[in-house]
Amino acid sequence: MNSTTYKERLKKCSSLLEKEGLDALLLAKPANMFYLTGDGRLCSFAIITQDGKVALGVPKTDIEDVRELAVFDHIAGFDDEVGMIHSIAHYFKDFDINKGAVGLEYTFLTQSMMGMLTHPHAKPKEVSVKDCTHIMSELRLVKDKEEIKLIKGAAAAADFGMKAAVESIKSGMTESNVAAEAEYAMREAGAEEFWRTYVCSGPRTNIAHGLPTNRKIQTGDLVMIDIHPIVNGYSADMCRTVCAGKPDEEQQKAYDIYLKAQQETIKKVRSGADIGDLEETLHAVIRDAGHGEHIFGPPIHGVGIEFEEAPLPPGHAFFHGEKEASPLQANVVLAVGNCGLYTGKFGVRVEDTVVVGKEGLEVLTSFRRKLEI
Amino acid sequence: MNSTTYKERLKKCSSLLEKEGLDALLLAKPANMFYLTGDGRLCSFAIITQDGKVALGVPKTDIEDVRELAVFDHIAGFDDEVGMIHSIAHYFKDFDINKGAVGLEYTFLTQSMMGMLTHPHAKPKEVSVKDCTHIMSELRLVKDKEEIKLIKGAAAAADFGMKAAVESIKSGMTESNVAAEAEYAMREAGAEEFWRTYVCSGPRTNIAHGLPTNRKIQTGDLVMIDIHPIVNGYSADMCRTVCAGKPDEEQQKAYDIYLKAQQETIKKVRSGADIGDLEETLHAVIRDAGHGEHIFGPPIHGVGIEFEEAPLPPGHAFFHGEKEASPLQANVVLAVGNCGLYTGKFGVRVEDTVVVGKEGLEVLTSFRRKLEI
Repeated sequence: MNSTTYKERLKKCSSLLEKEGLDALLLAKPANMFYLTGDGRLCSFAIITQDGKVALGVPKTDIEDVRELAVFDHIAGFDDEVGMIHSIAHYFKDFDINKGAVGLEYTFLTQSMMGMLTHPHAKPKEVSVKDCTHIMSELRLVKDKEEIKLIKGAAAAADFGMKAAVESIKSGMTESNVAAEAEYAMREAGAEEFWRTYVCSGPRTNIAHGLPTNRKIQTGDLVMIDIHPIVNGYSADMCRTVCAGKPDEEQQKAYDIYLKAQQETIKKVRSGADIGDLEETLHAVIRDAGHGEHIFGPPIHGVGIEFEEAPLPPGHAFFHGEKEASPLQANVVLAVGNCGLYTGKFGVRVEDTVVVGKEGLEVLTSFRRKLEI
Repeated sequence: MNSTTYKERLKKCSSLLEKEGLDALLLAKPANMFYLTGDGRLCSFAIITQDGKVALGVPKTDIEDVRELAVFDHIAGFDDEVGMIHSIAHYFKDFDINKGAVGLEYTFLTQSMMGMLTHPHAKPKEVSVKDCTHIMSELRLVKDKEEIKLIKGAAAAADFGMKAAVESIKSGMTESNVAAEAEYAMREAGAEEFWRTYVCSGPRTNIAHGLPTNRKIQTGDLVMIDIHPIVNGYSADMCRTVCAGKPDEEQQKAYDIYLKAQQETIKKVRSGADIGDLEETLHAVIRDAGHGEHIFGPPIHGVGIEFEEAPLPPGHAFFHGEKEASPLQANVVLAVGNCGLYTGKFGVRVEDTVVVGKEGLEVLTSFRRKLEI
């Protein structure tokens, strides 16, 4: 990104802050800081004022590194937690914020982090705080050209990782071994990082968050692989279910139903579509095939700097600090297939990252959707 | 662990709850749920009453899987966030908790999760809430024989991962490629999971949290590798710094100082020792060598289900919801070398997982401590 991009983002941020009656944001979530400043790291903070001033506070060890990445000049290094609190106070003073309201990330801050950021030695007494989750989501919702390009890069790494994982599967391997193949390949394909890899097999495919274990894959088991590489700061989200051996009729039937549901939903993705309607499309196919009891969880969400971000379907959105999603806009990026069909004996799921277009959409993850390896 | 272990843990938990004036715990952090119930998973909760009743709430897809892992019988499945809230209300009623106080994990719960768990449809109005972080830390602080055995397993996986990473290093490789080698090997050695891998090189070794990037390692660069495998639910924590090529005098000198500081600290680890004194031992060696300005962060912390847990040195403890640590007890497990010596040009660091003994200690991670590969 060049500095013009950040200036534009800050300008949009300013007008949202004004609309919401906030004088500044006090951010600590790396994804949000990365979006607005060019740098997002652990144990740091950023203050963004309504009139576009930006300050970063980082561990004192990191100052030179931040200078190379962040496009703004107010950078303070601190020694420890007390130093962090004092840095925050310093910028509140420096930026002349001694009343009004400041936005904090309620969906990111733990109670104890909240305690640090609003400590009487950090935040001026007369400054009130308010959740800014939905503001950051609104800013990050529609991706620009450069962001789409970066997400395509992540999708390519996901394809590469999925191929390696699927082609490695053989009876006797553990779920963890399969995860290793995906992760190694994603890094080989340029991922500097990845979000947690999910690999589950056999009856474990029925669970909601199938993190890998040392369960040994047996012939005839389904194997569900869900991966999320990060390339140059942007993510993709992709899931495939395959069978270690020849799938039986019940497995194939459930898979075909789910794939149909996912593909019919993808066909309806376009600018103006409603995320709730898309969810209903996916659920309806599953319900109509007699599996209404086997639905669980929100099947669609946004993808960007995080592999799971806004927009979220109504109902779930509320609990994640989000406003109800507006009709989809062009260049929103979605993962379709976030939750599966869970029969009780096993689960099936196929998930792809797609970009909403003015007309229709573009599917970014392309590894084959086929139960049989 | 057998069911007797959990009964003993619950008994100890009961007496702590009584002492703290809590009628129950409402947990959502997987590590804490795992410790008290045998199962810890995402998007779940556990209620533990002062008189030892245990209930788990999990996604409805997960009920059979939980039954195999958790040693307790009250298991509810829910459909979504609203269902989760209702499940919590159900157990509050079932366990007859309609006043008094309940402990929540303030260092884990975000503001929005806090909102769900204390939602008027979840928690009875007359029940107040209080942080239980220090209670869970006190419970988990001293490890039993089986836990030490499991941590030794994780330490062995760390050694195996470190060897693979260090031996792979060559000029032109990215930091991410080195991370891939460590992660692949840890899974090969039995890790079902790992906490985020840190690999940084060259000037990036100077930063506090050196997550891998696509920076290419050059001849003469230092490479810092910090890994944290999880084997059967327990973690180890290990860091090594090596040079890609022949280290120059400045690098070697800084490394020798840090290694001396770390080793002298380890020598003082024993039952009755004070974690603040250990921190001071490490810092003093660095200071006495003229690098007082190059110290950053807490150099020691506990290791167990999490790679970073209580005890923490005074000062830091407070901000992580912990009480000031008491003198070390036998069978507390520590990581010594959590933060390095940061010269500005580069950083050096060596970290090992050790078990406090009645007399002295046992070092669990053993890969060679040598700058030159």
